[in-house]
Formats: sequence, structure tokens, C-alpha cells
Amino acid sequence: MRICNRTEVFMAQQTTQIAVRADAGVIQTMLEEINRFNATPEEGTTRILFTEQELASRVYIKEKMRELELDVTEDAAGNIFGTLPGTEPALAPVWTGSHIDTVPNAGMFDGMAGIVSGLEALRLIRESGIRPRRNISVIVYLSEEPTRFGLSCLGSRMMAGCLSEEETKQLKDAKGNSLWEMLKKTGHDVTKLGEVRRKKGEVAAAVELHIEQNNVLDQNKIPVGIVRGICAPTIFTVHITGKQSHAGGTPMGERKDAYAAASELTLAAERFAKASTGEYLTATVGRVEVFPNAVNVISGDVKMSVDIRSIDMESKEEFITKLKNEAEAISARRGVEITFHTENHDTPLRCDARLISLLREKSAELEIPAMELISGAYHDSLFVGRFAPVGMIFVPSKNGISHSKEEWTEFSDLALGTDVLAHTLLALANE
Amino acid sequence: MRICNRTEVFMAQQTTQIAVRADAGVIQTMLEEINRFNATPEEGTTRILFTEQELASRVYIKEKMRELELDVTEDAAGNIFGTLPGTEPALAPVWTGSHIDTVPNAGMFDGMAGIVSGLEALRLIRESGIRPRRNISVIVYLSEEPTRFGLSCLGSRMMAGCLSEEETKQLKDAKGNSLWEMLKKTGHDVTKLGEVRRKKGEVAAAVELHIEQNNVLDQNKIPVGIVRGICAPTIFTVHITGKQSHAGGTPMGERKDAYAAASELTLAAERFAKASTGEYLTATVGRVEVFPNAVNVISGDVKMSVDIRSIDMESKEEFITKLKNEAEAISARRGVEITFHTENHDTPLRCDARLISLLREKSAELEIPAMELISGAYHDSLFVGRFAPVGMIFVPSKNGISHSKEEWTEFSDLALGTDVLAHTLLALANE
Repeated sequence: MRICNRTEVFMAQQTTQIAVRADAGVIQTMLEEINRFNATPEEGTTRILFTEQELASRVYIKEKMRELELDVTEDAAGNIFGTLPGTEPALAPVWTGSHIDTVPNAGMFDGMAGIVSGLEALRLIRESGIRPRRNISVIVYLSEEPTRFGLSCLGSRMMAGCLSEEETKQLKDAKGNSLWEMLKKTGHDVTKLGEVRRKKGEVAAAVELHIEQNNVLDQNKIPVGIVRGICAPTIFTVHITGKQSHAGGTPMGERKDAYAAASELTLAAERFAKASTGEYLTATVGRVEVFPNAVNVISGDVKMSVDIRSIDMESKEEFITKLKNEAEAISARRGVEITFHTENHDTPLRCDARLISLLREKSAELEIPAMELISGAYHDSLFVGRFAPVGMIFVPSKNGISHSKEEWTEFSDLALGTDVLAHTLLALANE
Repeated sequence: MRICNRTEVFMAQQTTQIAVRADAGVIQTMLEEINRFNATPEEGTTRILFTEQELASRVYIKEKMRELELDVTEDAAGNIFGTLPGTEPALAPVWTGSHIDTVPNAGMFDGMAGIVSGLEALRLIRESGIRPRRNISVIVYLSEEPTRFGLSCLGSRMMAGCLSEEETKQLKDAKGNSLWEMLKKTGHDVTKLGEVRRKKGEVAAAVELHIEQNNVLDQNKIPVGIVRGICAPTIFTVHITGKQSHAGGTPMGERKDAYAAASELTLAAERFAKASTGEYLTATVGRVEVFPNAVNVISGDVKMSVDIRSIDMESKEEFITKLKNEAEAISARRGVEITFHTENHDTPLRCDARLISLLREKSAELEIPAMELISGAYHDSLFVGRFAPVGMIFVPSKNGISHSKEEWTEFSDLALGTDVLAHTLLALANE
């Protein structure tokens, strides 16, 4: 037994060197193939959870996983796993992966970059003839974007125990379908939703590659970012009720214009976010519904979203207090009612210090320039971080643009990020 | 011949006294019956041009006209006429009437009050056994509200020569149907659209009854308002183009948020309208479309309406100059593009001085309290005023609310307004 063990260790050491570099062409082809599954060609990429396009892209990814001879499984929450079996599969596995869904009229990199680079990293490991100790899985997390159900990171949130089976029944899309019903309709065994949740220690480490969605790397001409921490969103739906009335017949002094109040609150959110003294804070009003939305009618009702991100909880809380105070002042001044409904209120995450070091080390070994930064956008890693040590690799977004058809990342940069990912995953899988 | 003429004059004098008062119950019944033609029961009244509901209400009104033995005709532009023939039908007729369409989720009085009171006035004249000299017509003007085609007063605008046949082909609804096509589809002889236009002198006088849509009468507890002038709207569609990007990934200092710019312009419009030194000016942003309208995306495009009303053209021009200057400043400051598209830019109307006097006289004779005021809302009379002397009677709107399901007018007040209308129409028709 002793000799046998030694032989295994020896063999593993023999084959831990990745012999090839990531291929930008392979990455490009896969991204372009996924991009065919798009509800709005010419107008950016739209692939919303459980639409025809999203379902077709899931089938495509599973095929790609099978081509790489990965074991393909899917949990009850619709998270897809493509697993390269290790020599000691009983050990806690190493994860990578991201998401396949998009916001409306988005780009072709946000999410998909992390899946494609994960698959390419496993190809490099396989083609180098390496069998690591631990299993390595590429994961497609269910619906990172909140487009359909108004809540983000559905798959990773369920893994982290932050979205219960009961809540999946209450969570509804615009047509009134619950997430639970939609999972069932798409062939998932909802009786096993309880098994989706992961315990601490169950996953050895998780490393996600993602486009930066900001311009720090692009401006600094550095191909790889190592994420120190992930901002977490707090999202409110703010409901403003004024008095619907005739645009011509109601003098300026006698109005309770819900939309004018919404405009005032929007500018207050912008002002307070700019004035925040925290490391990083953003506030965005991205969704606005005006009722009845007619040219000659003073609006009686407005629903608007406020999306707040920060790297620390204290800055967020401080901002929220200021915004709610301002809403009270607007309400009193204008005679409108303003109520805040909390859609989510997540805690930011600091990435695992040891993984940050490892990512620095691997970038240095590969002679790929890298810098540390923070993530203003949130990712599935925010929730995976609740039960596993997480690290994140960023690759440059041209001009920092994302959630837009102008979103762009050079395939050569993606290949460099994939090299760092592959070497890091392998090191972790051999621990 | 001479004796015969004298006899006619004598007979006319014999029968110019209206013997009965308007019946609030008759008015209520008719308004409630029209209100059944409603696309949004429980959520106010919605009756949009050439929808099932609007078409059914047209049939209903024609039936009511026939019950009163009026001659029913309809012109190529869809304006409906119910005419009580005079003894000298070759003379220029006297008109009354209003509109049957509504904005979305509106009330049951705006427009319909003027048609129902017109029919009730003709009933009073008929039941008093009177045959006036001139024809008196109750008119349903086509689509006073701009809901479907983005342009108001379609029927009266065509009568005034302010909307050509060619323009009816260019004017399209949200689905791309032109007004011309819709007129044709609903059985109108579009080859005769040229005949819709009226010349000056062709109509002796026109008096429209309408709800006030403001609270001047309600606050003063006065049942009848005599309109001095009608504010005319200028309507812009403002298009703001910023840069669509990720809500979390884009720091506050690097945004070109189209919606934040729209909010700033909205508040500027409100501020400038409040500061206007003209007799009456309002500015309203009632319609706002945010693209892509997702919680976590900074909007790249916003379209918003700005509706400006004033009793004098100078105040409007001054406001517009200030607003456009402010838009330029916002554009420069925020790096967004702002363009103004003029939907309409109408000239306000002063009501006919002789008709104002006549309305005061008839109110006094009937011992109905009346006061002069101006109309912030515009009406078909604005366009009828281009070719005929016009007068307007207002009845109180409870709390000044209109374009809302809370719009309300007491039926007893409507009856008093109808009495003034009937006596005024009769006096005009006997001139």
C-alpha cells in the first residue's frame, strides 16, 4: 500500500505540467457558436432564462462537455456540471464556471467567457495527459442575471442556501410563472431541490473567470485582473403614488406628479453615490415604469428600481439611510407616497487570501501581467463564497462597456486569462 | 310674402322659450350607458380610437341621435353629426359637441359630457315644440385624445385644415397603421377627405360643454364656467442617448446615464413652468420609455414626452427656449445626446367675445351662478375656433381631477350647464 501510494504521488508529479497554452481560436469559435442562441440578433445578445435561446445554449454546452469526455450532470436547480474526474474523486472538488444567460440586448462575453475558459482550461489539462487528484468541474450556474425573476444568481443562491424551495414558489416572472413551476416544466426534479444546497468544506476551492465590466484593465493595458472582493447588490423596487390628473388642466402648484418625484429621487441616488466615501459604491435606476404613461396625463404611479453596489456593507447602509431620508423629504414636499420594497440585500464578499496569492503566483510563473482590483459587478462567486473559498480572474472589457452590444474582450486576452485559470485549477486539484 | 314672413317671425317668437329644464337623470343614464364601452372596467375608462369599445360607442351615439329624430351623418374623417333641422336650413348652422375617446384609465366625463349635454339640449328644444331658424348639430369629433396616433383633435384638426390627407397617411399608431388606413378600414370614404375642411363663415357659432379638469369651479362652488381662452399644447418627444453599461461595473464618474439625464430635464421643465410669468403655463412629462429598462443596466436610451400648455404663445416660446438651453447644458455636462422632435405646436385661442357675453347673459337669465376662467386643457374648440366663433361652458370637476378613474362631476351640475347650453344654442340658432 505504501509503495503504491508513493507511485501515485510520483506519477501525479510527473504529469502536473500543462504542456500547451490556451487557444484564442478555440475560445472565439465557442463564444461565437453560443452567440447564435440570441433573441435579438443585430441588437446585441438576449438570452433569458428558459427561453428557447437559453435552453438551446444549455444543450450546446452539454455537447461541448461530452466532446471533452467530461461527466455531465445537472442538479434539481438547473445548475449544469461538466466534471473531469480526478484520481481521488472522494476528495472535495475544485470548481470553475459562470453563467449562460444575459440581460436584454447585452454582449457575448458576460458569463459565457467564464464557461468557455473553464472548458478550454480542462482541455489543456486533458491534452497535457494530466489526471489531477481532485475532480475539477466546469459549472453553468442557473440565471445569474435578474432579468426574468427580478432576482439574480438563482442557481448559486440555491447552492448557498439563500433561496429556499418555498421561495422558488413565490418568485414569479412577469407572466406569473414561478421559478419552481418553470424548473418543473423544463424537466427538473423539484422534489430534490433540497439537495442543491452545499455545505462548507464540500468544495475545496472555486475560481471564476469573468470579463471586468469596467475599464481598469483596459486603461492599464493589463490582461489579467485578480479580484480582491465582490460588491454585492441591494435592490429596491420603489413605488411612488401621486395623483393622476390632466396635464393641461392641473396648474403646476396643484400637482402630485409621481414621475417628477421619481426624477428627484433618481438624482438624489446619483448624488449620494457620487458623495460616498467608501472604497466603491454605485447606485443605478435602470428600470422605470410610469403609469398610465400617456403624453397628456400627470402620472399617478411610478415603479422604479434602485440597484446599489458596494464592497462594504457599511457604505451601503449609510447610502440607504440617506436615500430613505431623502424619499421622506420628497414625500412630504410633494404630497406623494413613497414605499421601498427590498428585492435583495446581499453582503459583499472578500476573496480568499490564499487564492489571491495563488493567482498572483501562477500569473508570475506564466509571465502574464496581472493586477489586483475589485469587482463592482457581482457574480455567482458571491454566493459560492458562502460555502467555499473563492477567487476570481478578470479579463479586460474594451472601454469598460458591458450589458451592451458594444461589450468586447479580445480573444487573446481571454486566452491569457484561461492559462492562469488552468494552472490555478490544476494546482488546487493536486493539493 | 310680407305677411307670410311676419307670421314666421311671430311663430318663432311664440316658440323660443324652452319650457323644461335639463334632466340630471337622463344625463346620468346616458353617461353610464356610454361607460359600458370600456376596455378597463374597475381600472377607469379606456376607450381608444377605433378599438372595439370606441366603435361600439359610436353606434350607441348614432342610435341616441335617431331616437331624438336628428338627421345622422358622418364625414370622411369620422366626425359624426346629429342635426336638428331649422326652418331655414340654408343658413350657417350652430354647432355643439365634443369627443367620445379617452386616454387610458380615464374618467367617464371628459368628452362624453359635451356630447350628452348637446343631445339633452336638443331634447329640451324639441320637447318645448321649438323649431329654430338655423340647423343645430351635435358633433362627435374624431379622437380628441392623442392616445392612439400621438396627435390630438384629429377630427376637428382636419376640419380646420391643419391635418392634410397626405399627413393622415404619415400619421401612424404604435403598430404602424396609418390614420388614413384605419379610416378606410372602418368604412370611411377616404377619397372625400378633402371635403372635411370647413371655410370661415360656414358655421355661425360653436359652443362646447366640457368638464373643467381643474378645481377652480369646485373650490368656488360655482356650477358653470365661461371660458375666456383655451391653452394650446406644444408636445415634444425628447430622445436622450447615453451609453448603456453595467450597473455594478461602471463607476459613478464614468457614466453616461440616459435616464439620469432625463430626470434632470424633467425637473428643469417643472422648475421653468413654475417660474413662468405668463397667465397660465404647465409642463408635463407624462410618457417615459427607458431602454433597455433592466434593473442592473445603466440606460443607454430614453424617450420622453414634454407637454407644454399656455394661454399665450409668447410664454410658451420663452419656456421652450429655456428648456432647450437647459438640455444643451445637460448634454454637455453628462456627455449624452439630446434631440427634440416637435409632435405639435399649436396656437392658443381666445374665445369669441360676443359668445362670452351671450353665455353670461343666459346664465344670469337662468339664475345659474357662473364665472369666467381659462382652459388649461385644450379641446376640439381650439381647432373649430380656426373657422368659427367659439364659446365654451365648463362644469366643475371634483377636486380638479381628470384623466383618472377618480374624475367626477355631479349630474346636477351637468344639468345646469346643459340649461345654459340649450338656451345659448337656441338664441344663436334664431339669429
